[in-house]
Amino acid sequence: MRELLVIGIGAGDPDQVTIQAVKAMNRADVFFVIGKGDEKQELVDLRTTILSEHMDRDYRIVDILDPPRDRTNVPSVRSAGSAQPDYGTVVDDWHDRRAQVFEEKFAAEDGVGAILVWGDPSLYDSTLRIVERVLARGNVVFDYTVIPGVTSIQSLAAQHRIVLNRIGEPVHVTTGRRLREGLPDGVGTAVVMLDAECSFTHVPDKDTEIWWGAYLGLPDEVLISGKLRAVEDEIVRVRAELRKRKGWIMDIYLIRR
Amino acid sequence: MRELLVIGIGAGDPDQVTIQAVKAMNRADVFFVIGKGDEKQELVDLRTTILSEHMDRDYRIVDILDPPRDRTNVPSVRSAGSAQPDYGTVVDDWHDRRAQVFEEKFAAEDGVGAILVWGDPSLYDSTLRIVERVLARGNVVFDYTVIPGVTSIQSLAAQHRIVLNRIGEPVHVTTGRRLREGLPDGVGTAVVMLDAECSFTHVPDKDTEIWWGAYLGLPDEVLISGKLRAVEDEIVRVRAELRKRKGWIMDIYLIRR
Repeated sequence: MRELLVIGIGAGDPDQVTIQAVKAMNRADVFFVIGKGDEKQELVDLRTTILSEHMDRDYRIVDILDPPRDRTNVPSVRSAGSAQPDYGTVVDDWHDRRAQVFEEKFAAEDGVGAILVWGDPSLYDSTLRIVERVLARGNVVFDYTVIPGVTSIQSLAAQHRIVLNRIGEPVHVTTGRRLREGLPDGVGTAVVMLDAECSFTHVPDKDTEIWWGAYLGLPDEVLISGKLRAVEDEIVRVRAELRKRKGWIMDIYLIRR
Repeated sequence: MRELLVIGIGAGDPDQVTIQAVKAMNRADVFFVIGKGDEKQELVDLRTTILSEHMDRDYRIVDILDPPRDRTNVPSVRSAGSAQPDYGTVVDDWHDRRAQVFEEKFAAEDGVGAILVWGDPSLYDSTLRIVERVLARGNVVFDYTVIPGVTSIQSLAAQHRIVLNRIGEPVHVTTGRRLREGLPDGVGTAVVMLDAECSFTHVPDKDTEIWWGAYLGLPDEVLISGKLRAVEDEIVRVRAELRKRKGWIMDIYLIRR
């Protein structure tokens, strides 16, 4: 493989891919599909739709089966007295094992390879870290290029028709885990990603608003917004129902004090 | 005008528009172009290129001339003892005057209108606030839809091939003004937008890295990265030279402690 393209394909709506992404996809000979072997069929179908709609040439698909991640060692909160959570170390080891698997797959192909990433490769996605690790190992050599995509943050804001920032003020992008630890002083607006545990119910402030969205850009899209204390129960209930019915959920929200 | 489309068109590269944006553009009868009458010709040309490349139908262009913003009343720092900066109030008055001007232009058109926004309408852009104000005045009625776009944040990350967040950690999106006031405790990574004054030179930490980019996705794109103290003088110099030569600059950076 002489070149690798890491391509952001937007938050779910197949039309959310950019012209730049379509052009990049059409330079690829082979698409690497990364998973633990348990990817939801709906997401597989969605990616297949994006490829079949936009590809004007033949291509191969190669599966990269992720090594399992050791979750037993992940603490739910930081270790007392430790500035760094053990979480980071566990993820780090896992990335090393992933890099070996990726290296083998890359070495077995020639031409131009591509990896499609939901949203954008720069936010809470490990693809670029793995690619850097593969290159650092020094056993394979290739150029690589990143194509940016629309993130679920932009998609959330668009569907709710909101501006993320108050005038002149910052926007904090964080995780459910971090939200539970409390937002930093002076942060009034936060976008929360990767929250499987409805951490918004732990936000103490009574004058907080929330804009929540699930399956953004897909036919099952659901939006709920309002005063946090007034709508949080509804979000928890709807989220649980949707997750049960579909078997998976992708959601994100903005909270503002 | 029965409907308004607010369309994010990406950070500069004409190929960075999404398929969704192209489809939305082709529903529009009229494009409103907002400015103070001094927009840089290069940006006007870029938008014209995007329209001519992607439009399959006739359309009108209507200029909306912004009322001048009163800058004399904008303090460079917050007023002592005041929780809210005067800055907010000044911008607020200006938006009211803008809403009146927009209302007149909207009322004079029929069919579907569109406003193209660089990057994405949800970040440090006033278009949605003005549209809400126009609607709140109650003199005109229309549906409106927001189409998300790739932001300069994604573009910066892609061109530098970096992930914005450290594993599991937050990303703070802020302005040059706020950076000068100091980042909140616990914030290790910040994307800085709207910084005309090279506020990164005021960041005290000696172990900070910076990834800077100007004219992202355009032929004049420049990228500089490294240890902040090692490259800050180069960025200041290059930024001043580029701005002088071209008459304008659009830049953004990531800093990480």
